[in-house]
Amino acid sequence: MSEDGVRETVIAKAARAKEAARRLAYLPTNVKNEALLAMARSLEERTPFILEANAQDVEAGRAKGLSRALIDRLLLTEARIAEMAEGLRVVAGLPDPVGEIVSMWTRPNGLLVGRMRVPLGVIGIIYEARPNVTVDAAGLCLKAGNAVVLRGGSEALNSNLAITRVIAKAATAAGVPDGAIEFIDVTDRAAVNVMLRLNDYLDVLIPRGGAGLIKTVVENATVPVIETGVGNCHVYVDKDADLAMAEAVVINAKCQRPGVCNAAETLLVHQDVAEAFLPSAAEKLRERGVTIRGCPRTQELVPWAEPATEEDWATEYLDLILAVRVVASLDEALDHIYRYGTKHSEAIVTNNYSSARRFVTEVDAAAVYVNASTRFTDGGQFGFGAEIGISTQKLHARGPMGLKELTTTKFVIFGEGQVRQ
Amino acid sequence: MSEDGVRETVIAKAARAKEAARRLAYLPTNVKNEALLAMARSLEERTPFILEANAQDVEAGRAKGLSRALIDRLLLTEARIAEMAEGLRVVAGLPDPVGEIVSMWTRPNGLLVGRMRVPLGVIGIIYEARPNVTVDAAGLCLKAGNAVVLRGGSEALNSNLAITRVIAKAATAAGVPDGAIEFIDVTDRAAVNVMLRLNDYLDVLIPRGGAGLIKTVVENATVPVIETGVGNCHVYVDKDADLAMAEAVVINAKCQRPGVCNAAETLLVHQDVAEAFLPSAAEKLRERGVTIRGCPRTQELVPWAEPATEEDWATEYLDLILAVRVVASLDEALDHIYRYGTKHSEAIVTNNYSSARRFVTEVDAAAVYVNASTRFTDGGQFGFGAEIGISTQKLHARGPMGLKELTTTKFVIFGEGQVRQ
Repeated sequence: MSEDGVRETVIAKAARAKEAARRLAYLPTNVKNEALLAMARSLEERTPFILEANAQDVEAGRAKGLSRALIDRLLLTEARIAEMAEGLRVVAGLPDPVGEIVSMWTRPNGLLVGRMRVPLGVIGIIYEARPNVTVDAAGLCLKAGNAVVLRGGSEALNSNLAITRVIAKAATAAGVPDGAIEFIDVTDRAAVNVMLRLNDYLDVLIPRGGAGLIKTVVENATVPVIETGVGNCHVYVDKDADLAMAEAVVINAKCQRPGVCNAAETLLVHQDVAEAFLPSAAEKLRERGVTIRGCPRTQELVPWAEPATEEDWATEYLDLILAVRVVASLDEALDHIYRYGTKHSEAIVTNNYSSARRFVTEVDAAAVYVNASTRFTDGGQFGFGAEIGISTQKLHARGPMGLKELTTTKFVIFGEGQVRQ
Repeated sequence: MSEDGVRETVIAKAARAKEAARRLAYLPTNVKNEALLAMARSLEERTPFILEANAQDVEAGRAKGLSRALIDRLLLTEARIAEMAEGLRVVAGLPDPVGEIVSMWTRPNGLLVGRMRVPLGVIGIIYEARPNVTVDAAGLCLKAGNAVVLRGGSEALNSNLAITRVIAKAATAAGVPDGAIEFIDVTDRAAVNVMLRLNDYLDVLIPRGGAGLIKTVVENATVPVIETGVGNCHVYVDKDADLAMAEAVVINAKCQRPGVCNAAETLLVHQDVAEAFLPSAAEKLRERGVTIRGCPRTQELVPWAEPATEEDWATEYLDLILAVRVVASLDEALDHIYRYGTKHSEAIVTNNYSSARRFVTEVDAAAVYVNASTRFTDGGQFGFGAEIGISTQKLHARGPMGLKELTTTKFVIFGEGQVRQ
């Protein structure tokens, strides 16, 4: 397709989404919920159609030599489709954030001024080869009254086309305006570049995927972006920690699912408890297949630990590797986190009130924990019911984003003829 | 200065601000308030020094042939400096948004999860030749716990340098970390370009100024931007309007201060009341020096009205000009606003419950009014005590931005050793 052709196609779809967004903004909750349930039913009913499309992607992926991990992300099964449908049912059951009056007050001149929660409008989602994102994002955007323009990775094109065809049709039949769920079926990278600068049509872009994708979007977009991304998370074991608790938290934060952004990458240990804590905790980690890269003091206490380099402190391994550093004080731990952290999730294990308070106050991160695993940074775990991603920026949304983060507010003002003096 | 030199200078200042921001984030409220009061006192005490610097700018501006309006914006007087000082005292008196627990809840596993309000970090403000912005922005950013990197227009360089020297010195003496208020004294436009991409140092950029400046920032920044800007605002006089009220609202919205973004630019009138309303309202507007550009029906009712072109509907005049259109229905008014509005401030005048409700629900704008002038879209008028600007985007902040809009939240999580299953 020519560059102009790509541009025209993307704009045509975005324009349909924008048109849909106007009515979607005040579509009654029960219509949205019925649509979500109908989408779930359709996904289940059309499972063979979706699996057939997915088989083409998987076959092409294998022929292209995609890694086993990528093929696994791409692969759909009956169970996975049922999970996607279940996700939509969960979203249908969540409270509708739209229309909520967040606050309202009366001014001395009698004006009643309030903030009303309203949809963002049209949300662009740029993601990689995970067909489940297609359903999750479409469901959450719809519930929050937004139109969505989806652009998934080319490896999952057939799967995504099949899925969006099924869910968009079900949504429309249930009374959702045509265009509410648009999928960009242009695999050319140029389509992404067009989306990045489509300020007249898109209100927000949310990239979901690896560091390369996020960087491209942040660096080139003129449409406002919600950045999701990297987590170089720390667990700090304070001198006053319950060491059994510390061990459980560290093991969980590192091992429970090492490939995700809220897993811990560096362990900081106060020097006063290093000897009592590190050798045995390290052993338990080793039993779970964890490699340790330690500072000199760590290597003294854990002889099998590899030496940590400057680079290790800054690395998000996403793997069974843990950097370990013994620190002289809480201040040194705070400095380390300030210097190397990515402001995602940081935890202290301590029974000292003042250390806990300082850690919570002074650490600048999306989620700051006392005596709990960093792995809880997740919309579901926080009680949001579902999440569209974890924001690592400070503007608009920080940390796990649920339905409310897919809305904005408008001021509504009720007067009796007031004019400004 | 060479391009590298500009870059180095800007980065050095931004780095100082970032260092300051770390401590500023949890600086006690009383220290911040004392600093604001000290800054106010210093401004007053050093008035002669500031006026001297300002005189240089004004003289240079006159020599360069700046318009009278620009010179007026640039000019400082003893009274204007006193006003700036008073503004700082008002900010000192406002509640500190930092540290507020916005909400907190307990999860089934016993984790206590809350959102704590925290500063954004380092805020870059890019503005034109208004020295009062220097003081306003510095005061608001400081109160919300942010460091600020200011880059004002070159025409006000001497004034801004004098002002920042005075207030930064007073702030530091009161216990605010050095670097909390940084001013970029490089007039080269390259300095702005460096700021736009300083993601490692700046958390947010807020451009304040004309459409050209805003466009440059939005199109070239990789740092997240809060867009402030254009207002093509409408007043719609419904068929069920109180016509005396409608007249007062329209006159106020157009004439009270025509050069600002919340002034009305287009009047829409329902055809059923056009004859009763337009001729007399137009006459009153004419008495106030307003030129009318009308649709054909308007021209029938107001023979002296000029014809409106398609361009008029889309124009933010910022002047005593009003576009007027007679519409057949509320729907036609809503369509007009959807098509030509800039989502800033929109008003309906009506006593019809259903029309009012539809207008509030269906109009997508930062501020939607029933029976009041659009001129109220202002932080002071809404009761925020002060404002840093009016956001016209949907992300993070929409409408007038007070202290809270200069903050973000972080999740704080208190556990007793919880790990994720």
